[in-house]
Amino acid sequence: MNSVGTVTPQRAAFDTPILLQGGVSLPAFELVYETYGELNAERSNAVLVCHALSGSHHVAGIYADQPDNIGWWDNLVGPGKPLDTNRFFVVGVNNLGGCYGSTGPMSLNPVTGKRYGADFPVVTVEDWVAAQARLADRLGIASWAAVVGGSVGGMQALEWTLQYPERVRHALVIASTPKLTTQNIAFNEVARQAILTDPDFHGGHFYEHGVVPARGLRLARMLGHITYLSGNQMAEKFGRELRHGKLSYGYSTDFQVESYLRYQGDKFTTYFDANTYLITTKALDYFDPARSYGGDLQAALARAKASFFVASFTTDWRFAPERSRELVYALLHNGRDVCYAEVDCDAGHDSFLLDDAQYHADVAAYLDRIET
Amino acid sequence: MNSVGTVTPQRAAFDTPILLQGGVSLPAFELVYETYGELNAERSNAVLVCHALSGSHHVAGIYADQPDNIGWWDNLVGPGKPLDTNRFFVVGVNNLGGCYGSTGPMSLNPVTGKRYGADFPVVTVEDWVAAQARLADRLGIASWAAVVGGSVGGMQALEWTLQYPERVRHALVIASTPKLTTQNIAFNEVARQAILTDPDFHGGHFYEHGVVPARGLRLARMLGHITYLSGNQMAEKFGRELRHGKLSYGYSTDFQVESYLRYQGDKFTTYFDANTYLITTKALDYFDPARSYGGDLQAALARAKASFFVASFTTDWRFAPERSRELVYALLHNGRDVCYAEVDCDAGHDSFLLDDAQYHADVAAYLDRIET
Repeated sequence: MNSVGTVTPQRAAFDTPILLQGGVSLPAFELVYETYGELNAERSNAVLVCHALSGSHHVAGIYADQPDNIGWWDNLVGPGKPLDTNRFFVVGVNNLGGCYGSTGPMSLNPVTGKRYGADFPVVTVEDWVAAQARLADRLGIASWAAVVGGSVGGMQALEWTLQYPERVRHALVIASTPKLTTQNIAFNEVARQAILTDPDFHGGHFYEHGVVPARGLRLARMLGHITYLSGNQMAEKFGRELRHGKLSYGYSTDFQVESYLRYQGDKFTTYFDANTYLITTKALDYFDPARSYGGDLQAALARAKASFFVASFTTDWRFAPERSRELVYALLHNGRDVCYAEVDCDAGHDSFLLDDAQYHADVAAYLDRIET
Repeated sequence: MNSVGTVTPQRAAFDTPILLQGGVSLPAFELVYETYGELNAERSNAVLVCHALSGSHHVAGIYADQPDNIGWWDNLVGPGKPLDTNRFFVVGVNNLGGCYGSTGPMSLNPVTGKRYGADFPVVTVEDWVAAQARLADRLGIASWAAVVGGSVGGMQALEWTLQYPERVRHALVIASTPKLTTQNIAFNEVARQAILTDPDFHGGHFYEHGVVPARGLRLARMLGHITYLSGNQMAEKFGRELRHGKLSYGYSTDFQVESYLRYQGDKFTTYFDANTYLITTKALDYFDPARSYGGDLQAALARAKASFFVASFTTDWRFAPERSRELVYALLHNGRDVCYAEVDCDAGHDSFLLDDAQYHADVAAYLDRIET
């Protein structure tokens, strides 16, 4: 229903070096992206959708040869949907350092002729946005009608308003935060240590050994899943239900939730790259626009010119509503136009991916009023 | 100040088989324990202190040859302290399956002549309490004035009132829960999988290989520490402070909290047994006295005859105050005497180990009124 239908990923190659925040310069890079809808004659209806940790450029629709491979935000993006492709030209892009086709750890390093692996530099939210700006140039988009993202995607939407204040008219920052809490960093660190200490990681050069650090990546994903769901939702979904009707008095599977987490962890290792996981968690940890303003978020956001839609979810304990409110207050104190929705949804952090009626109505109402 | 001083662990050997909940019978076992204070002539002033996940029989005092090895609840137990050894005869015991001297995975299996390792059966809170009852028999303690414990120690205190209602007059159930939530089980499962999938685990028989599954045990402890602390306390303690003043753009150490977690994880692997960790998390997961009463906690607790002191801590998100309140309501509906303290302390689950003035005053007030 109302799908953008069959889509085809495209590829943009950039041969001007990009100097990354960490001081490393990449001589060239490629970005894989998808577009939905039509760019209007004024080139004023373009919307960038930024992905979260395990997302990709495949935001909506399906592939001709993979009819079950539905874009990760297909419930939000399409004709007649909240982000309406009848009105907007929507762009999804796999970030630099990703593992879905854009230049990243799995790409060939032109210097060595081997895959980058651990030699791929740590990239930041700022770097992602700088790379996305190159893509905007290539597509002839001087200014986005909106940049939209959830979780670390929301960080990118916020960063766009700071790095390119003239190039984004609206930012939709959903289930996000202006910086990670200590506890957020702590969880990321456990996930990283799981990967880094997996003997199959081989210092990040596991491709050459024909293995993947599946144990570590699996643990990282299992842990991640706990933080994406609310405690109540987990309890409702799995309770203390036993997988085989009785206790095993061993370490196979007792509770349904164990089975669920193992399944999610195992599945993840078949398609996601461990180096990209490491890079992305670092990008999350590092993001903190207030850092160079002595922690003063209001001062850090003073250069933003966009209007904002900020949404949080009541049961999101990963990026709690308090974090969104901090952002909202700092924006309001700068005189920005801000719509803030605190959505009562039981699904924790993952709520931003779900088809919650109130949430989608809020997004639709905001986007509908954008002039293109 | 007010220490019980130098203490000496003792050992009790039991050669009557103990049939465990899982169906396995241990032909013989030993428990290591310590005592503080004097058993009175009526044998009516004995208090059992039950330990939590990484605790031991060494509850208070120091060892002659290890003056820095202070008991884990030394701030609570001693002359003039809330659990006053001038009045009470206090017993600390290392649980069955433990790694501090009681029979457990590191012990020699009389059948094979090798260490039990993974062949040591999963034990439950019920099994621990049954073994502790043997020790009570040995010490000539027909009835405990009180059984006291925090976290999984609190589960043991509660279990005493159900398994031996005539043998415990007061139960102090602190920072505990009548059963784990789904999220609790999920965290335990990630910790277990970290250990079980460590190549050095060798199916639980790592002793024979001269190694320990340090990677997995380290991850388990790092993750555990996140759940023991409150988010606010982590933020206050470490914030986003950098270890070396600037971002590394690599995977060494950026934030202080990373350094803290790694240190805690590394330290743990030098003294704690991975098989005991697995067993203890299973005992936690399995504990659910209401299970055989169709989930009706009130019915499950009907056989308890003790009076109760229940305490929770406002910032404990591992075993939240809601869990303690469930217990309190079920006890009250059974007509039990219950004192309930919900203590405003910022330290999360670990609050029960701290010298919080209000908390200690509450414990002292309760214990002071116990007749011996």
